[in-house]
Amino acid sequence: MKNILIIGCGLIGSSLLRSIVVKKIAKKIFVYEKSKSNIIKIKKLKLPCEVISDFKKIIPNVDLIIFCTPLSEYEKIILKINKYLLPKTIITDVGSSKEKSMELIKKKLKKGIFWTSSHPIAGSEVSGPEHGVKNLFHNKWCILIKERNTNEKHLRALSKFWKKIGSRVAIMDSKKHDTVFSMTSHLPHLIAYNLVKTATDFEKQKKYELIKFSAGGLRDFSRIAASNEIMWRDIFFNNQKNISEVIDLFIKNLLSFKKDIQSKNNKSIIKKLINTKKVRKKIIKLKQDINKPDFGRS
Amino acid sequence: MKNILIIGCGLIGSSLLRSIVVKKIAKKIFVYEKSKSNIIKIKKLKLPCEVISDFKKIIPNVDLIIFCTPLSEYEKIILKINKYLLPKTIITDVGSSKEKSMELIKKKLKKGIFWTSSHPIAGSEVSGPEHGVKNLFHNKWCILIKERNTNEKHLRALSKFWKKIGSRVAIMDSKKHDTVFSMTSHLPHLIAYNLVKTATDFEKQKKYELIKFSAGGLRDFSRIAASNEIMWRDIFFNNQKNISEVIDLFIKNLLSFKKDIQSKNNKSIIKKLINTKKVRKKIIKLKQDINKPDFGRS
Repeated sequence: MKNILIIGCGLIGSSLLRSIVVKKIAKKIFVYEKSKSNIIKIKKLKLPCEVISDFKKIIPNVDLIIFCTPLSEYEKIILKINKYLLPKTIITDVGSSKEKSMELIKKKLKKGIFWTSSHPIAGSEVSGPEHGVKNLFHNKWCILIKERNTNEKHLRALSKFWKKIGSRVAIMDSKKHDTVFSMTSHLPHLIAYNLVKTATDFEKQKKYELIKFSAGGLRDFSRIAASNEIMWRDIFFNNQKNISEVIDLFIKNLLSFKKDIQSKNNKSIIKKLINTKKVRKKIIKLKQDINKPDFGRS
Repeated sequence: MKNILIIGCGLIGSSLLRSIVVKKIAKKIFVYEKSKSNIIKIKKLKLPCEVISDFKKIIPNVDLIIFCTPLSEYEKIILKINKYLLPKTIITDVGSSKEKSMELIKKKLKKGIFWTSSHPIAGSEVSGPEHGVKNLFHNKWCILIKERNTNEKHLRALSKFWKKIGSRVAIMDSKKHDTVFSMTSHLPHLIAYNLVKTATDFEKQKKYELIKFSAGGLRDFSRIAASNEIMWRDIFFNNQKNISEVIDLFIKNLLSFKKDIQSKNNKSIIKKLINTKKVRKKIIKLKQDINKPDFGRS
């Protein structure tokens, strides 16, 4: 590719930028970023890109546009760039929720233009271009969304792109995507936020200092619950239906655990606790985590 | 101290053994371990201790006995050692739940003998003597339980002991202990188990492969949910009342999150998500975790 435009250069955008440079995928990288403080950081970090403020001259010469903004920014930007887009321009995004955003894109994107959505399963609890790392996507899954109206040529090009970045590519439709990730990513984040909220409520209620004793488990959830609030609000709102369904299933199971505990149902609880261990083994076998025990990070 | 007896030499017992040796706290360490496979491991690892099978000769000469078994083993062992115990013998345990076990101890322990309970806030998802590490307790909190009938001299000696091991000591009664840790440790573990169970149920229901995409959040919970099932069953059963209370608070908050998501209540959800970030900062300030971002362990 010759030219790539990254729209939104936070943790994910700047990690992509770094990966593209290292893998020599593009001759030139343009960056559009609305946050002034992020632009100052990008310049201070000397990230190898040209920060642009006007789409007009750039977009007709760009081969690939990657949206790395929160989902709630898509509409505004689509309306700004629509008139410069060409059918050959490959457009993708890295959003974590797909059905609602694909509906919006279908409605707002100029007719005859293609959008091929991506979702790299990578991230961190920190935000901003200063935290980007070049190997963020290495060996991680990247989901590509394929629907009835997907441009197959663009899909193939994107698949090649993500593989060059170092990712493993899986293809599914947006409905399946949102179902899978409501469970493997959206619910875990919501649960982490909710646990930390519950702990602070409980601390106020009991008037005990308890956060200081959080090394016994709470600590690990607090890391996940420190993730970017705008990004996660957008994901929760966009994937509302699936998330509501997994919340209900989660509560049903939690009440069953509560019943086991209150009735001291040894057989039932031991079965549950042992089965989760098996899932851990599966996750390690699938290379979604490593087998090094964690004794706390210190 | 001259002689220390560790009863139960798994992850915690063997880590204590290693710490005691490094810090030169005792002249001799005796180990009582009921699992034959653990005894083989202890010998293979050449852990510097004498494995005993008979308490009679040893206990009268021991200054400190540390129970490192699951809570459900206490009664059996107390009944075995009762007749050899002396009022000067310092007895402690490292159990994660206190009220119920203190009741049991009060009932079963020979009159005139003192038990001063400890709870080092340290552990891992792995079990067994082969996973013990000498610095497991370093800079971690160790809670000492003080009740009306606590032997002050033993309490002071134990406080000194844990400080030598490298821990920070906090003192509270068993009621407060069980309330605090129901929230900071027991609920997080239960939630992790429940999340992994919900994911496997959901996978079966949808007939999707989804565990393979667990790097987006689920993975981190699966680590916690791989902890020892006997230990956690005992904790859940022993601290049943407090755990039931925090489960209810957790569900109440989760339903409020669900309502925010379904009604797209921007103000309410953003407030919640931002507040949890503040807790993260507090946890780092309190040195319960480090500030290094996590990009997944690979």
